[in-house]
Amino acid sequence: MTQNIYDDAAFFTAYARLERSIEGLEGAIEWPALHTLLPDLKEHRVLDLGCGYGWFCRWARTEGASSVQGIDVSERMLERAASMTNDTAITYTRADLEQVELPPASFDLAYTSLAFHYLTKLDRLLAQIYRSLVPGGHLIFSVEHPIYTAPSHPGWSLSPTGQQVWPVDRYLEEGPRTTDWLAPGVIKQHRTLTTYVNLLLQTGFHLRHLEEWGPSDAQIAASPLLAQERDRPPFLLISAVRPEEATHVAE
Amino acid sequence: MTQNIYDDAAFFTAYARLERSIEGLEGAIEWPALHTLLPDLKEHRVLDLGCGYGWFCRWARTEGASSVQGIDVSERMLERAASMTNDTAITYTRADLEQVELPPASFDLAYTSLAFHYLTKLDRLLAQIYRSLVPGGHLIFSVEHPIYTAPSHPGWSLSPTGQQVWPVDRYLEEGPRTTDWLAPGVIKQHRTLTTYVNLLLQTGFHLRHLEEWGPSDAQIAASPLLAQERDRPPFLLISAVRPEEATHVAE
Repeated sequence: MTQNIYDDAAFFTAYARLERSIEGLEGAIEWPALHTLLPDLKEHRVLDLGCGYGWFCRWARTEGASSVQGIDVSERMLERAASMTNDTAITYTRADLEQVELPPASFDLAYTSLAFHYLTKLDRLLAQIYRSLVPGGHLIFSVEHPIYTAPSHPGWSLSPTGQQVWPVDRYLEEGPRTTDWLAPGVIKQHRTLTTYVNLLLQTGFHLRHLEEWGPSDAQIAASPLLAQERDRPPFLLISAVRPEEATHVAE
Repeated sequence: MTQNIYDDAAFFTAYARLERSIEGLEGAIEWPALHTLLPDLKEHRVLDLGCGYGWFCRWARTEGASSVQGIDVSERMLERAASMTNDTAITYTRADLEQVELPPASFDLAYTSLAFHYLTKLDRLLAQIYRSLVPGGHLIFSVEHPIYTAPSHPGWSLSPTGQQVWPVDRYLEEGPRTTDWLAPGVIKQHRTLTTYVNLLLQTGFHLRHLEEWGPSDAQIAASPLLAQERDRPPFLLISAVRPEEATHVAE
């Protein structure tokens, strides 16, 4: 089983104080960009993998989703999520995304925010997601950007010429990276950008859109420190679709 | 017109001394990886954009291509290319890739190696290439990797902890980068990885494979210094196809 850092008491306490935990979707700087990738949710059956506090699940219902299935490995987060709604069209299930079995052809949209980079067996989960989508169904997700996850020592540093730079090394060495984000020893899986794309294509998805997220001018005006995120994108957003027919491109 | 650095005398002299100029395809470290992306060339009509000395054009004929059209902006390079073959199935044409007009539905494969990052109007050229391919035709190309082209000051440096790192900044700021590669003041266009992918998708291509190139274990064993290229990929290789039918993914 993957490290379940979200049930670590220190991590959970720190996580609960993040803007995105308190304010929900609006507290996540990449949300406006992710939002524009989403299809119209009316009458959609939605799956949220790594649903956390359930902010997206509840929002999807306000957008007209007919049902929402939230899945998370963290018992604490699911308890909090369940306490925030009485909506019977939202179901929360505890499962490890490395091992989850999803029902076939059951969802119009699979959504997952900043969860895939914790998983070691992403190919297995992508195959599960593909199978669980109806033909024409969408997969929209965000992960930490590979430039962000690659370094041995992530963090801004000064170049010999006095420039603030992001020190990239080990980009092509995929695998675990241990960081001290919110708590010591948090393990994330670094993958190259092309691995994300090729895993999707190999699974049968068609790629619709990629975005290396950076702050908008308005976001920088409101929070000038955000400008540095344009030097090195923190997030990668991807929109893919299970094709209507299995039209694998001829080799 | 794009800067035609290849007809600059100093640049041309330095370029002519590169391993890839003297030894051709086998002198280019990324060639084995690019090679595996190519379809079987038998009876294929091949287009090589930025053909240089024509190494790929001649090789394509040995692989059974029925005809090869090489295009380059550099008069010097085309003269050299023409002097190296008597094969009437190979045609060389001088044209600026920013302005070239390609004949419709005339090629089975469009190939271009390390040329796109000199162009300012890549969207225009991609539309020309798409139109010039038959349905099912392939586009295979390499460019300098966006992590490689992004920095204000490209070059390995030492981090405060003594690590050799590649100092990334300005990744999301697309546009010209001036470097002193072979000659002072060579201008390349930095684009993000997602811009390359989204331009292809917007043009109508389907994406088949992406590769962020790094040296193989055998290549590192033969040239140990190459190992650092795994810290920051120098090349991006992409395989795309003009779909058999125009099956644009529904919005």
